[in-house]
Amino acid sequence: MNKPHIVLLGAGYGGMMTAVNLQKQLGVNEANITLVNKNDYHYQSTWLHEVAAGTIHHDRARIAIKDVIKTNRITILQDTVVEIKPDEKKVKLENAVLDYDILVVGLGFEAATFGIPGLEENAFMIGNIDSSRLLREHLEYHFAQYNNERDKKQARLNIVVGGGGFTGIEFVGELANRVPELCEEYDINKAQVRIINVEGAPTVLPGFDPQLVEYAMNSLESRGVEFVLGAMLKECKPDSIVYEKDGKMVEVPTMTTVWAAGVKANGIVENSGFETNRGKIEVRKDMRTPEYDDVFVIGDCALIMNPETGRPFPPTAQIAIQQSYTVAKNIKALVRGGAELETFEPNILGTVASLGHNDAIGVVMGDHKIFGWSATAMKKIIDNRYLLKLGGIGLLMKKGKFNFFY
Amino acid sequence: MNKPHIVLLGAGYGGMMTAVNLQKQLGVNEANITLVNKNDYHYQSTWLHEVAAGTIHHDRARIAIKDVIKTNRITILQDTVVEIKPDEKKVKLENAVLDYDILVVGLGFEAATFGIPGLEENAFMIGNIDSSRLLREHLEYHFAQYNNERDKKQARLNIVVGGGGFTGIEFVGELANRVPELCEEYDINKAQVRIINVEGAPTVLPGFDPQLVEYAMNSLESRGVEFVLGAMLKECKPDSIVYEKDGKMVEVPTMTTVWAAGVKANGIVENSGFETNRGKIEVRKDMRTPEYDDVFVIGDCALIMNPETGRPFPPTAQIAIQQSYTVAKNIKALVRGGAELETFEPNILGTVASLGHNDAIGVVMGDHKIFGWSATAMKKIIDNRYLLKLGGIGLLMKKGKFNFFY
Repeated sequence: MNKPHIVLLGAGYGGMMTAVNLQKQLGVNEANITLVNKNDYHYQSTWLHEVAAGTIHHDRARIAIKDVIKTNRITILQDTVVEIKPDEKKVKLENAVLDYDILVVGLGFEAATFGIPGLEENAFMIGNIDSSRLLREHLEYHFAQYNNERDKKQARLNIVVGGGGFTGIEFVGELANRVPELCEEYDINKAQVRIINVEGAPTVLPGFDPQLVEYAMNSLESRGVEFVLGAMLKECKPDSIVYEKDGKMVEVPTMTTVWAAGVKANGIVENSGFETNRGKIEVRKDMRTPEYDDVFVIGDCALIMNPETGRPFPPTAQIAIQQSYTVAKNIKALVRGGAELETFEPNILGTVASLGHNDAIGVVMGDHKIFGWSATAMKKIIDNRYLLKLGGIGLLMKKGKFNFFY
Repeated sequence: MNKPHIVLLGAGYGGMMTAVNLQKQLGVNEANITLVNKNDYHYQSTWLHEVAAGTIHHDRARIAIKDVIKTNRITILQDTVVEIKPDEKKVKLENAVLDYDILVVGLGFEAATFGIPGLEENAFMIGNIDSSRLLREHLEYHFAQYNNERDKKQARLNIVVGGGGFTGIEFVGELANRVPELCEEYDINKAQVRIINVEGAPTVLPGFDPQLVEYAMNSLESRGVEFVLGAMLKECKPDSIVYEKDGKMVEVPTMTTVWAAGVKANGIVENSGFETNRGKIEVRKDMRTPEYDDVFVIGDCALIMNPETGRPFPPTAQIAIQQSYTVAKNIKALVRGGAELETFEPNILGTVASLGHNDAIGVVMGDHKIFGWSATAMKKIIDNRYLLKLGGIGLLMKKGKFNFFY
């Protein structure tokens, strides 16, 4: 009998960890495994705000897939998914069509711009390595241009970040560290630069403990970040942004608007005809789609309701990594036959938001609040634990964050 | 009696070395000296092609004026010259008006675009620190954008340099070193990138020994530089360049056109009513203007005919530095009264053109040809000698080029 073909779509947190777990748990002769990814690298999407601000190099935030995956066990196919055809058990790629016996959909997120005019064309996103290093270069470029013009444009030095959620706050934190360096590099007075965070809710980091939110805002404001709360972006132009606050329209000149206020699941999921809820697939307890016994969904494309709150669990790296253990075990059960599939139980260990390289806030172990040095240290420990799980001590030493004391 | 007021306009090679020589040669009570400069730093314009390519940081190519000039001897005034009024013995600055008794005009060069349409608006220049680091950022920005677009634009990876003279050739040499690094940084295939040098004459480096020119072209071509000779730029658009060659119009898509084919003396000289020849002041043997006994001209604003060739000496750093010794001595003679002014005698020691950090060509000590390692070493020795003259061993150690073996 033929070995089943397991196809993993996407080398994000969920896909990569599933691959790593499968190569540990399945014997060589049990299955053929193919991992499909657009790039030949995996990246840490939770580090991209640092790449975008220019505080870490993008090579720190990415890992060559072949450094983690044994290519004699798993075939790595660099290609882009176009459509999934679950009824035919096929995946259409840009350059090939793959047949599968078991599929894992881990295609991640994309930006959601909610139809706000100009956002898609003019705003920058912190979505992947390409877009993050483009934003880094864009910032540098406008600082470089500033002193080349007789009529200096303040719009080159105003940076507007739409969204005071996790990504927006972590990004302005990095910017607050980075801007003084950019000013030094391009002979610009630091007081000239504005970092403006625009958030629709009455508070940033909605859902976070109010005491920690206040700590975060104080920390960021003391480093020059301005907050505009309860404001809705209305239009993004190439050289300004318009928002509405208290019924008034305000236009801020800026050549750098960063959109960090919305993500949605990869559109391929919806376009491939799966039944979706908010663009995601509400998975069964064993992480399979409701309709197909041979299709697992993981990470940002999967929706799991939190029975305690009646709302979905937020799509985090932490939860995608946890799901990968269940998915890998359940695939092994399917391949070997007979065994019952395991139920996924999320176990939220905590959440830490960085505020630049030297400050952070977080909630860990239930409701234990941390901030300052202990939170930055915890954030690094979380990042390092993932590297250890993904690629062992070698990868940890190569890509880990060990600067606990600077 | 009042001490005479000596005003130096411009802190380029000529102005800085005149200031350094004056602070050595004049006693504290002999004169008041003011050095006027747009920036608080002096820069090495002969190193700017490296800054523009991104192969050295701009801080390597500039020197804080106060690190070289004793501020208790010479007043440093950071301001921009608007007009010289030699009949009134006044200089109009943006924020002040200065009276002088003796003036030194060392205002350097600016780009000459000969009315070629679009060049002023769309081409980049290697003229000063600001414009050079902007070009560096511009290159990086387009490489960063390349992979962010579904329809990839070759114009982002085509770099066209107009002019195969000294600056144009030294710049493409640096680019040939830099492009592989940029490709690595932005995940671009090196073979995709084109570096095109367009020159109107039938050869690059006109006036250089033909054997050395051939060496240079071979060296650069082997590293991917393309030469288009006997071609005239006709129009520079934001995303292409048009040149005429053999009666045919050719359009090359590019978002980076660098204009390195023409400089002229600072327009302030002509606009201030001095008698000019090719935009420059043809100075007397003692480096003073024909009409004013109290105005010296130095560097790129001064024209001196070479009686052997019947053509002007080219405006080089070497000649500006040599002139500073004559100018300083002659100012001392005027201040002390009585003595006769010295005649400036140029002494062309040699010329070396770099072809990137690991190759160069040159003619030294009359007609001794050098190339390869000996020429790159000679280039660095020339650069280091200047730093030693300007600021002594301290400045040499801080800013010198000691990487002879890489």
